[in-house]
Amino acid sequence: MAAITRQTFHNSLEELQQQILRMGSMVEQTIARAVESLARLNAEMAQAVIDGDKIIDDMELKIEQECLRLLATQQPMARDLRKIVAGFKIITDLERMADYASDIAQITLRIVATGQPLIKPLIDIPRMAELAQEMVKQSLDAYVRGDVELAYNIAKADDQVDMLHNQIFRELLVYMMEDPKTISQATYLLFVSRYLERIADHATNIGEEAIYLVTGERKELND
Amino acid sequence: MAAITRQTFHNSLEELQQQILRMGSMVEQTIARAVESLARLNAEMAQAVIDGDKIIDDMELKIEQECLRLLATQQPMARDLRKIVAGFKIITDLERMADYASDIAQITLRIVATGQPLIKPLIDIPRMAELAQEMVKQSLDAYVRGDVELAYNIAKADDQVDMLHNQIFRELLVYMMEDPKTISQATYLLFVSRYLERIADHATNIGEEAIYLVTGERKELND
Repeated sequence: MAAITRQTFHNSLEELQQQILRMGSMVEQTIARAVESLARLNAEMAQAVIDGDKIIDDMELKIEQECLRLLATQQPMARDLRKIVAGFKIITDLERMADYASDIAQITLRIVATGQPLIKPLIDIPRMAELAQEMVKQSLDAYVRGDVELAYNIAKADDQVDMLHNQIFRELLVYMMEDPKTISQATYLLFVSRYLERIADHATNIGEEAIYLVTGERKELND
Repeated sequence: MAAITRQTFHNSLEELQQQILRMGSMVEQTIARAVESLARLNAEMAQAVIDGDKIIDDMELKIEQECLRLLATQQPMARDLRKIVAGFKIITDLERMADYASDIAQITLRIVATGQPLIKPLIDIPRMAELAQEMVKQSLDAYVRGDVELAYNIAKADDQVDMLHNQIFRELLVYMMEDPKTISQATYLLFVSRYLERIADHATNIGEEAIYLVTGERKELND
């Protein structure tokens, strides 16, 4: 195994973070498209989200290999070690978010297959998706910059997402009770809301990784 | 950082696996208890599951620290490195499973709070939970023993869990359509079924880690 200099190591670490940011940006887009495919009942767009999941899986594998290479060829200590370890966990969170986006796109396909229009125009669900995307972006910034304050902000956005989820849940239950014909679709929309809430939880995990990176301590941002 | 001998390293690796098995066994129990709390509508049991989640979180942190210590004080290569990396990912999967068990226990509390009995005796949900527990056990055995064949078996159990989930989904939709009074509880049970399906997915992830450990290749067992 060739020895590499500290400078090269730090360049590799820099490049690793750039790759993680690129993966994050792909994930943000895929969340946006999944929810757009649902709001428009656009099967083609939904299928593109599902097909695109493979690309994100491949990015995860590539970054994971790079983390392992850095661990194996160097003996990173303290903060460098934590940066790699945190990166390693972050890509798992990003990949899971993309899976949820794919799940949402699958629901679009199922609703399209029923031939029914949406039982209501979607307002809160796209709002949740926007918040979740913003959380992904901010949590990755917090990781790259080692910004603990920014990481703590994520928890506030997560509370908003949770509130929206509860609101959507109650609203959809009312729809179902008032008109049983809406039950099947309302159930699907409940799952979408739950998936977005989970995506926000994963962004919160990334915020926790950023805090761990700086402080060396594990802190739970959400309960 | 004190140097440790190869023999000590291998003892540490052995101990690491034992800790992971203990965590797995706790997670199996917590899944069983969560579903039992639901089947019996036992709020006390549900609360114990929720409170116990903290213990599993602590186990994860402790094992994670041990993985980091091994990475930092040794330069494990090839299979040893993969064993630690796989261990690292496995505890994340186990911790997420415990979170889902906790989510199920939360649903028990909500249903208990309505004062309503179950809309039907639970049969398929406990069956899913048993399958999921068995998958956790087998996937961890596959990891510890490096048994690729056993890891591939997990995928078959996962298919059974998916089938049960689809069956429960259809059945509960029928309940809701026939009697709108069941909607609220049926929705909760749908989520329980979905959480168990996710738990099985996490066990499948562990199976994939076992394959990676032996072959050095990442393989998707479920789609």
